[in-house]
Amino acid sequence: MAPRIVTLLTDFGTVDGYVAEMKAVIKSLAPDAEIIDATHDIPPQDVARARLTLSRYWRRFPVGTVHVAVVDPGVGTARAALAVESDGRFLIGPDNGVLSPAFATDGAHAVQLDVPGGASLTFHGRDVFAPAAARIAHGEPLDILGRRYRPSVVMHTPVPRRGFGGSQSGEVIAIDRFGNAITNLESANGNAVAVHGRHVPTVRTFSEVGIGEACALVGSAGLLEIAVREGNAALVLGLSVGTPVETDAAPAPVRLTAE
Amino acid sequence: MAPRIVTLLTDFGTVDGYVAEMKAVIKSLAPDAEIIDATHDIPPQDVARARLTLSRYWRRFPVGTVHVAVVDPGVGTARAALAVESDGRFLIGPDNGVLSPAFATDGAHAVQLDVPGGASLTFHGRDVFAPAAARIAHGEPLDILGRRYRPSVVMHTPVPRRGFGGSQSGEVIAIDRFGNAITNLESANGNAVAVHGRHVPTVRTFSEVGIGEACALVGSAGLLEIAVREGNAALVLGLSVGTPVETDAAPAPVRLTAE
Amino acid sequence: MAPRIVTLLTDFGTVDGYVAEMKAVIKSLAPDAEIIDATHDIPPQDVARARLTLSRYWRRFPVGTVHVAVVDPGVGTARAALAVESDGRFLIGPDNGVLSPAFATDGAHAVQLDVPGGASLTFHGRDVFAPAAARIAHGEPLDILGRRYRPSVVMHTPVPRRGFGGSQSGEVIAIDRFGNAITNLESANGNAVAVHGRHVPTVRTFSEVGIGEACALVGSAGLLEIAVREGNAALVLGLSVGTPVETDAAPAPVRLTAE
Repeated sequence: MAPRIVTLLTDFGTVDGYVAEMKAVIKSLAPDAEIIDATHDIPPQDVARARLTLSRYWRRFPVGTVHVAVVDPGVGTARAALAVESDGRFLIGPDNGVLSPAFATDGAHAVQLDVPGGASLTFHGRDVFAPAAARIAHGEPLDILGRRYRPSVVMHTPVPRRGFGGSQSGEVIAIDRFGNAITNLESANGNAVAVHGRHVPTVRTFSEVGIGEACALVGSAGLLEIAVREGNAALVLGLSVGTPVETDAAPAPVRLTAE
Repeated sequence: MAPRIVTLLTDFGTVDGYVAEMKAVIKSLAPDAEIIDATHDIPPQDVARARLTLSRYWRRFPVGTVHVAVVDPGVGTARAALAVESDGRFLIGPDNGVLSPAFATDGAHAVQLDVPGGASLTFHGRDVFAPAAARIAHGEPLDILGRRYRPSVVMHTPVPRRGFGGSQSGEVIAIDRFGNAITNLESANGNAVAVHGRHVPTVRTFSEVGIGEACALVGSAGLLEIAVREGNAALVLGLSVGTPVETDAAPAPVRLTAE
Repeated sequence: MAPRIVTLLTDFGTVDGYVAEMKAVIKSLAPDAEIIDATHDIPPQDVARARLTLSRYWRRFPVGTVHVAVVDPGVGTARAALAVESDGRFLIGPDNGVLSPAFATDGAHAVQLDVPGGASLTFHGRDVFAPAAARIAHGEPLDILGRRYRPSVVMHTPVPRRGFGGSQSGEVIAIDRFGNAITNLESANGNAVAVHGRHVPTVRTFSEVGIGEACALVGSAGLLEIAVREGNAALVLGLSVGTPVETDAAPAPVRLTAE
């Protein structure tokens, strides 16, 4: 059997050594675990961004993978620490919405992790979440780690509103490193997309527009993205999280025969 | 036996490929070594920061771990290259203070690494430190790698001064990614902390202050930290490395019985 | 046999989860593959920078290593996706020059990767390159992955011009994290280097100049670098990619005997 994978997502950066401490705890308790960095560059305390990032990869990893996600502005308050089993994977993190993707699956269930006596009150990543990840990677069942628990925060991507004639009103939910604006729309049905009063053509691939030109296309998560070919759409078009994006109504079907 | 872990700490960033070259050398010489990134984001040539980061994690890894720490402004000068054995772990890096945490332990001993003939004069990370790490990970004893050596630079965190009535005068020793200001004080004995003429309450957990409010609390390294709940204390309070921090004198014990 | 190494170089950063998705695909298809991060910090769409970084490490890894390099501004256009075998290593990425270092070796040969039916039109890193890397790591021969292909773009570092009396005219080809300016000159034959009208002495090691002083020395890739000891040459001297750098003509040999 391949060693159990433990992925790490945090907003810690790496320079302070917090991530290295978590890795040390995991390797001490589960020497065969294989640690994979997902990211440590989530903006500080940006739970919503972490949730979106986690949603992209957690189910693509093999069954049995343990995903740790620590973006935890509430550390040291009464918020629960969770371990979730969902679709054969395990997810570990605070009860603040970061693990929401795991709860969208039938049969997902969670336990509230016990907090060990000497745990730091400011760093549950090291003292609560990493040990729990190691124990799961080591083969311990979820129910040994704590009591069944129903999450108190589950976040959802906002649902676009449907308007007159099939138009949709959505918004930008993330700006990626390239400046692509990812929306909550799943398609524009071939119509143009309106953003900041500007109409952007929908295309299948970047090759349909010139370099430096804007377009809207279905991205790799199945969501409509506004992009500039070989450029930065967020900068060029002034887009940020929350910017409204609308698709036009479907045009009346063209009549091919004369009346 | 689990493969021997080699952790890497550098100020190289990753974009230039220097870290990848080090990894290539290690995997070529010790194919079973398991490489774990601690950080590559130490600010260029900031030996003091690297020392603090290394101090957080080196002893938390399993016995036998090899820690490489290359922040090396003196590369190409006469400074020695070291391998240290301390508390069952191995530490490798330049003799400039970065490995100081290893020398705080009884029984620590070092050798001066021989510099191979064709080694680059600007990149000992690849040509001296990585090969030494691989050889140790492969099981070679320290004394084969060079002659016993006494380090010429050992850095210590400054010790707070104790004042009248039990007050302490310390300073900020690091600002972390969240803007928390880590001090060299171990506790405030429940008294307020004074910084830039402002009094900040000491608390056990963030939950004792409101969001956006400042507090001082013992952090995960056992040191007093000045923080702003869900905010950035360094920005809000104007803190940086070296900022003086004082704790008030212990208040006179309250008399609970009337005389 | 040690598990096959797969290195990753991208311009994706890590925060969006794209890299984690690639890792998930690789671990799903080749559970024994050992993933090593080279870098994810290539500036967006900077193919030339990626080529230079890849050139530093690809041949230093053990024979059999699979190197994935995805800096891919042309994704979704007609550009081919490649897998290359060169000097016993495998390299995977778009046909845009990023894999050029692999083609400098005798016997290098490439195939054009088939694009699977459901592949995203914007993210071949996940849907084309990662699966190909996993299949090679799993032991499949290159020719199963596609048809032989001759690359359409091979980039070369510009060759310096040789001038009167042995002088050379070159340029800065990269600025590294420390602000060192790496040139395309291989040596200055002991002469000074002229940059922006200023003469910089050539040295063997940093120790020959004072802290804060500029020098030129042969760096760890065998190329002449302009550096400031414990400083940032690019900032101090105003250097950037393309800045012209010249070496003086060789001085007339000194006559040691009187005529």
